[in-house]
Amino acid sequence: SRSHRITVLAGDGIGPEVMIEALRVLDAVQAKFGFQVTRTEHLVGGAAIDATGHPLPPETVDASEKADAILFGSVGGPKWENLPPDIQPERGALLPLRKHFGLFANLRPGVCLPSLTHASPVKNELIKDGFDVLCVRELTGGVYFGKPKGRHEENGEPVALDTMIYRKSEIERIARVAFTAAMGRDKRLVSVDKANVLASSVLWREVVIEVAKDFPEVQLSHLYVDNAAMQLIRRPGEFDVLVTENLFGDILSDEMAMISGSLGMLPSASLGQRHENGLYFGMYEPSGGSAPDIAGRGIANPIAQILSLAMLLRFSLGETGAADAIDAAVAKAINDGYRTGDIATGAEGEIRVGTAAMGDAILAGL
Amino acid sequence: SRSHRITVLAGDGIGPEVMIEALRVLDAVQAKFGFQVTRTEHLVGGAAIDATGHPLPPETVDASEKADAILFGSVGGPKWENLPPDIQPERGALLPLRKHFGLFANLRPGVCLPSLTHASPVKNELIKDGFDVLCVRELTGGVYFGKPKGRHEENGEPVALDTMIYRKSEIERIARVAFTAAMGRDKRLVSVDKANVLASSVLWREVVIEVAKDFPEVQLSHLYVDNAAMQLIRRPGEFDVLVTENLFGDILSDEMAMISGSLGMLPSASLGQRHENGLYFGMYEPSGGSAPDIAGRGIANPIAQILSLAMLLRFSLGETGAADAIDAAVAKAINDGYRTGDIATGAEGEIRVGTAAMGDAILAGL
Ligand SMILES: CC(C)[C@H](C(=O)O)[C@@H](O)C(=O)O
Ligand SMILES: CC(C)[C@H](C(=O)O)[C@@H](O)C(=O)O
Repeated sequence: SRSHRITVLAGDGIGPEVMIEALRVLDAVQAKFGFQVTRTEHLVGGAAIDATGHPLPPETVDASEKADAILFGSVGGPKWENLPPDIQPERGALLPLRKHFGLFANLRPGVCLPSLTHASPVKNELIKDGFDVLCVRELTGGVYFGKPKGRHEENGEPVALDTMIYRKSEIERIARVAFTAAMGRDKRLVSVDKANVLASSVLWREVVIEVAKDFPEVQLSHLYVDNAAMQLIRRPGEFDVLVTENLFGDILSDEMAMISGSLGMLPSASLGQRHENGLYFGMYEPSGGSAPDIAGRGIANPIAQILSLAMLLRFSLGETGAADAIDAAVAKAINDGYRTGDIATGAEGEIRVGTAAMGDAILAGL
Repeated sequence: SRSHRITVLAGDGIGPEVMIEALRVLDAVQAKFGFQVTRTEHLVGGAAIDATGHPLPPETVDASEKADAILFGSVGGPKWENLPPDIQPERGALLPLRKHFGLFANLRPGVCLPSLTHASPVKNELIKDGFDVLCVRELTGGVYFGKPKGRHEENGEPVALDTMIYRKSEIERIARVAFTAAMGRDKRLVSVDKANVLASSVLWREVVIEVAKDFPEVQLSHLYVDNAAMQLIRRPGEFDVLVTENLFGDILSDEMAMISGSLGMLPSASLGQRHENGLYFGMYEPSGGSAPDIAGRGIANPIAQILSLAMLLRFSLGETGAADAIDAAVAKAINDGYRTGDIATGAEGEIRVGTAAMGDAILAGL
């Protein structure tokens, strides 16, 4: 039977509890679809700091290099909040992982199911049918990693700077990912930049327009980032795929996630180069954070983690049947009325559940 | 009697029509409060491009140099959309004005009156009492103007870059503006940065914390920009004053404006150095754009322009009585039920009006 290998980095906060549910789902689809996933668990984030002094121990990186993909939980919490940024769980684990594995393409669905519009902060009449936006964020370029970066003195005064830089090839490859994703959806792509101010955005827009020639069926448009931040709130349902550079993507995909009201249901994929067989090395993680305030109480929504597993199966292992089955089982659990606290209203027909019972409901649908 | 001098740059789209109402209000408060404003009108934006080929003719700058303040309408429209960014109405007028006059402090109120929560895209139960947030955006630094900025080739490949740069003194002066503003309000300040990634943000945070020592009564907290983009949507009512760098301010203040649902009611001030007498040279303009889709139809909401005039009177002319009177007259017009289309619901008691009739209602309240 087909065999794969992943590393499991559960991390902090609700990470370990939602990961348990994802791994139960993985067991079930393995058995059902006849493949084998060898998985090894490793330290990351605050848990790794506590055990080894470092948020991303070399051992975790080494093991992940031998794997086809990383299933990531979440990292961070108040305990490590006052460490210097470089060695904080989030920054100290995520940025090096992205850079080391060349994870340049961050796919973040911003989905609000029609049955969950009440959970969105946006008025129901603006999102009657829910919405389904895919944010494609460039993840290894721009102002995150650009050099020079740092601090110096000028006339005795401290000055600090970062460099927002893009080379054409970096823009081209993320644009291709976005256009390809749009082809599999509603064929509408909005590219977000600040080309009225930034030189890097002028190049961004030029290259996106050039790549568009290879995807004549996709309807391309452009928004300035300030306008995008407004339009996402007013008319989220009008977006299909959105592509943007690293920093804008950081802001807009989080904004989008908040607008969806379903933070606990949103997975994400961070993909590296595509292999010859069409699959990617990738890292998969919930869009929400480690939610230390509710950790350990068995009430976190495991769906984001479970859908992250589905993305992993789809993009890194090529187990499309299993991925589809998980997506369907999640949809069924929601349709059947199962609700963790974050998405519950108390409406009739809702079945209020905790983390494990939501896992059970999804397993039952497989 | 006290005499002042301003330039009036009405610009494009709805600019000229809402400006008429603001100038009627100016006439009224002059008479009532016993001061004189000499005003001269000048070309800016698309109107200036059409007449002179340039969005910011030297004559407009020269005249503004001799004035105490600029009352600005709005610029831009489809007619000039395909010009190169540098000479487009928005960028080609606004950025040079900011730089030339050193307008480093952009104050943008994000206000949703309790009676206008229905106009906000956010669910009413999240903004029951409305909200009143003041965004303080640094306006002449950061990635907007940082050098190097531009494009070159590396190994035959185009590369483009911008420099996000702050010197300590730039951060210090905007922080002082923000703390001072907070002292006159609810004494809570949120500084927004991305100090987990950006060197410029690490300095930003350091300097803000240092300035805080001079304002011990103000409660200071910090948010990363991605988190701020989320929290503004979920709990706008919990913010008092927000201070951030140029690019983040561009995005967040527009997001805030959209969340308020009252774009047509939001003024802004862009202030330069403070004079010895406590007043600032400043430019005052509505937060919304030129709204070409509704221009010329007499339906635009003039309130943003009228409140911009009130800010001008307050910060640049020191005519506090007149400014207070305008603010009160606007509040009364809203309380009395006057509504332009952008803020109307059709609820009982509403009096649906156009631009001029809203102007009348406000004049009546003076
Ligand atoms: C923790 C931080 C460095 C990271 C980022 O800015 O990319 C996070 O906000 C994210 O979006 O994954
Ligand atoms: C037109 C543009 C250059 C400008 C900016 O980015 O500052 C505008 O968006 C604004 O906020 O006034």
